[in-house]
Amino acid sequence: MEKNSSLGNGLGGKSIILRLEMNTKEIKFGQVASAIFEAGGDMVAIDVIQASGDVTVRDITITVTDSVDVQNVTSRIRSLKGVRLVNVSDRTFLMHLGGKIEIQPKVPIHNRDDLSRVYTPDVARVCAAIQEDPKKAYTLTIKRNTVAVISDGSAVLGLGNIGPYAAMPVMEGKSMLFKELAGVDSFPICLDTQDTEEIIACIKALAPAFGGINLEDIASPRCFEIEARLRDELDIPVFHDDQHGTAVVLYAALINALKIVGKSLDSIKVVVCGIGAAGVACSKILLAAGVKNIVGVDREGALVAGNSYANSMWEWYAEHTNPERLQGSLKDVIQGADVFIGLSAGGILSREDVQSMADQPIVFAMANPVPEIKPEEVEDIVAVMATGRSDYPNQINNVLCFPGIFRAALDCRATTINEEMKLAAAEAIASAVSDEERNPSYIIPSVFNQNVVKAIRELVVKAAIDSGVARKIPRE
Amino acid sequence: MEKNSSLGNGLGGKSIILRLEMNTKEIKFGQVASAIFEAGGDMVAIDVIQASGDVTVRDITITVTDSVDVQNVTSRIRSLKGVRLVNVSDRTFLMHLGGKIEIQPKVPIHNRDDLSRVYTPDVARVCAAIQEDPKKAYTLTIKRNTVAVISDGSAVLGLGNIGPYAAMPVMEGKSMLFKELAGVDSFPICLDTQDTEEIIACIKALAPAFGGINLEDIASPRCFEIEARLRDELDIPVFHDDQHGTAVVLYAALINALKIVGKSLDSIKVVVCGIGAAGVACSKILLAAGVKNIVGVDREGALVAGNSYANSMWEWYAEHTNPERLQGSLKDVIQGADVFIGLSAGGILSREDVQSMADQPIVFAMANPVPEIKPEEVEDIVAVMATGRSDYPNQINNVLCFPGIFRAALDCRATTINEEMKLAAAEAIASAVSDEERNPSYIIPSVFNQNVVKAIRELVVKAAIDSGVARKIPRE
Repeated sequence: MEKNSSLGNGLGGKSIILRLEMNTKEIKFGQVASAIFEAGGDMVAIDVIQASGDVTVRDITITVTDSVDVQNVTSRIRSLKGVRLVNVSDRTFLMHLGGKIEIQPKVPIHNRDDLSRVYTPDVARVCAAIQEDPKKAYTLTIKRNTVAVISDGSAVLGLGNIGPYAAMPVMEGKSMLFKELAGVDSFPICLDTQDTEEIIACIKALAPAFGGINLEDIASPRCFEIEARLRDELDIPVFHDDQHGTAVVLYAALINALKIVGKSLDSIKVVVCGIGAAGVACSKILLAAGVKNIVGVDREGALVAGNSYANSMWEWYAEHTNPERLQGSLKDVIQGADVFIGLSAGGILSREDVQSMADQPIVFAMANPVPEIKPEEVEDIVAVMATGRSDYPNQINNVLCFPGIFRAALDCRATTINEEMKLAAAEAIASAVSDEERNPSYIIPSVFNQNVVKAIRELVVKAAIDSGVARKIPRE
Repeated sequence: MEKNSSLGNGLGGKSIILRLEMNTKEIKFGQVASAIFEAGGDMVAIDVIQASGDVTVRDITITVTDSVDVQNVTSRIRSLKGVRLVNVSDRTFLMHLGGKIEIQPKVPIHNRDDLSRVYTPDVARVCAAIQEDPKKAYTLTIKRNTVAVISDGSAVLGLGNIGPYAAMPVMEGKSMLFKELAGVDSFPICLDTQDTEEIIACIKALAPAFGGINLEDIASPRCFEIEARLRDELDIPVFHDDQHGTAVVLYAALINALKIVGKSLDSIKVVVCGIGAAGVACSKILLAAGVKNIVGVDREGALVAGNSYANSMWEWYAEHTNPERLQGSLKDVIQGADVFIGLSAGGILSREDVQSMADQPIVFAMANPVPEIKPEEVEDIVAVMATGRSDYPNQINNVLCFPGIFRAALDCRATTINEEMKLAAAEAIASAVSDEERNPSYIIPSVFNQNVVKAIRELVVKAAIDSGVARKIPRE
């Protein structure tokens, strides 16, 4: 309940719909309306569903400010004589009824002539053409514009291992965003297995229909193996969004934050806290971008070359970061750092820690729903701050990256999404905030900024062509 | 080429689009138009794509009567000076450009409030609700209305084992028909494996998003094992359309054919020729419907109990059919039969064979594209005849069954599509031809008859409820 109510906040209230069955002999609607108002509900719509004799059924839409008010309203209604509360639906649930996406034919089938072309017998000529030249799958099937969004439901949002059925609404939401923001057709698939080899085999098997694979919400360390193997074994882009989407948007934010403080990538000390899937990917993109001094910290403290770690990714990480071989806890290594990047847990960074950072500290506290440190605790001492939340300025939001980067990859038929393309995507996102607009509260464009996808597409297609992974030079 | 041209026939001519680059200094468009006309092409549209200086690019749509004319037209154009034939596209190929289906959000995402509901943070409440009660996947995700169309590309139309890429256009066509005819969302998946166990594992893994699985164009005998295992191991309907769709429509046709000749199911002798996937399924539905005397014939002749067969399905078949233990070839066992059901190869039934059948013979010659015997060879001696082709009366077409039977299965959340539901679907299809309409050339409704899906839904939902496999009683 606590989690739900905190998630419900920050939305400026939510709407619920109450279905009421009233006996008009026993109660008047005005009495019900008063009761709702007194309990803190703001009535915004009434729909009469049924009205026969003394019984009337109405759907009442009300806005409430938090989940406590919902309780107040519903218990108040239940206490009234002559009213039965048939159902309580909130608008979020109503938007999910029957799922959030649908599949549409691109051309209608009105008559036998249409049928003959899109299905038997004439479709056989199209099949034969693809059999003869499999590359034609890109022109004659949905492969050209379709991405699979695939999860095993093992690390979904802040909810954890909730399984494939419960993960579907997130993947459907992602499919919506792909289409709305970048015109990419995308289909959500939630796998009923959490076995690495089974996941790999299944995704390889279902790949022919798709021009790209967006892996989503798969737990670490399994996600590394799955992504690495699929990148090797498939000839279409495979992109684990939790890793690389986060990394791209983080790097975009850092580009603009560094402009504000006047520091350069190769001179800064960066502490990355939380060396899971996203932490590794963020560190890798920063290394590729030219950052020299990154220190990774996890539960056991700073990762240092020479130590031995059970997690093989940590072994790799320690060898490729922490050039000064700093030891100790977050509190120790944060001293003198220019940038803090948090992908760990709520509240683990203190005001004193930030005070010990270098001049003009940049703090990206991306833990969700509670950041490593709340902006209000340090707003007077940080130069730039970002979080993963939409109710503070500078939200590091993957939605800025995945639609555009896949749009580009599909348009140039890229075989992969490589480091060059990710760096280009970050630069494109950063460039969507102009020099005039840029300020400490605005280093990242809104997800509704229509220039973002266009800018990403342009730079990422160019990077794909330059790095030799494009199979087509798109028009425009 | 021969195959393609025969498939192209029966469509009443096809349209092709020629993209021509002309140098207007060397040739006038009128000369090109004359050449096209003289070569047998009927010009129906001209689109100017580019016109700069002396060079003009135009798309010319022409109707031709068969593939020979296409050759004539294109070679004639190639012989002209000042014209370059950039591309030849026919309308069927143009309809396939970029695939035939797209994925659409059901609600728009205009602003942050929309985004918060369909995606993070609010979607987490929906996920949590499903995690708590997995049945809610049916109300809160696309599962309620979505079917997977899955093939391994091993037995596609008459083309055979063309693989997953080349099979996609058929599966996309099927997805279109699901939506157009029955409002079912369906997504095509072509698997890049033909290993039985891998196919089973993959389909089980991807099942959570779907309310049903339509298996398609999977070779025999693999298809039996795959379907049987998935039916056991999944709690959603699994339906191999090549088997059961064909069987349902065949039985529907037989119900009406028997009314015409005045014979009853339990009195007839039926010879089924071609004991592959469809032949087995057709025989099974007839047994379930009450036919007592079925004789199966394949390359080795009649299947007889006591013989040993390499194909385990044939062992089962021989034990459950041929009560008189007839031996011999098709020519031998067809004598005295009331019904011939062909699912084998073109031309294997002779006029003499039909003459040896019982009075008022019923001949269903469903081999494609060439039937076991052509209607024109026996139209004077058969009582009722049907084929798999659209250019003869009485086409046995799966499109009559799959949209409606899945519509029904989804609406009542059936755990399976059982024999009772298939029989009900056949009765519904047969009932769409009224007593007044029924005649030897009209025993099966058109696929565009809007009553078919409605009739199937009603009877199949009832059969599902009566047989205890419905998890919900739908409204209406």
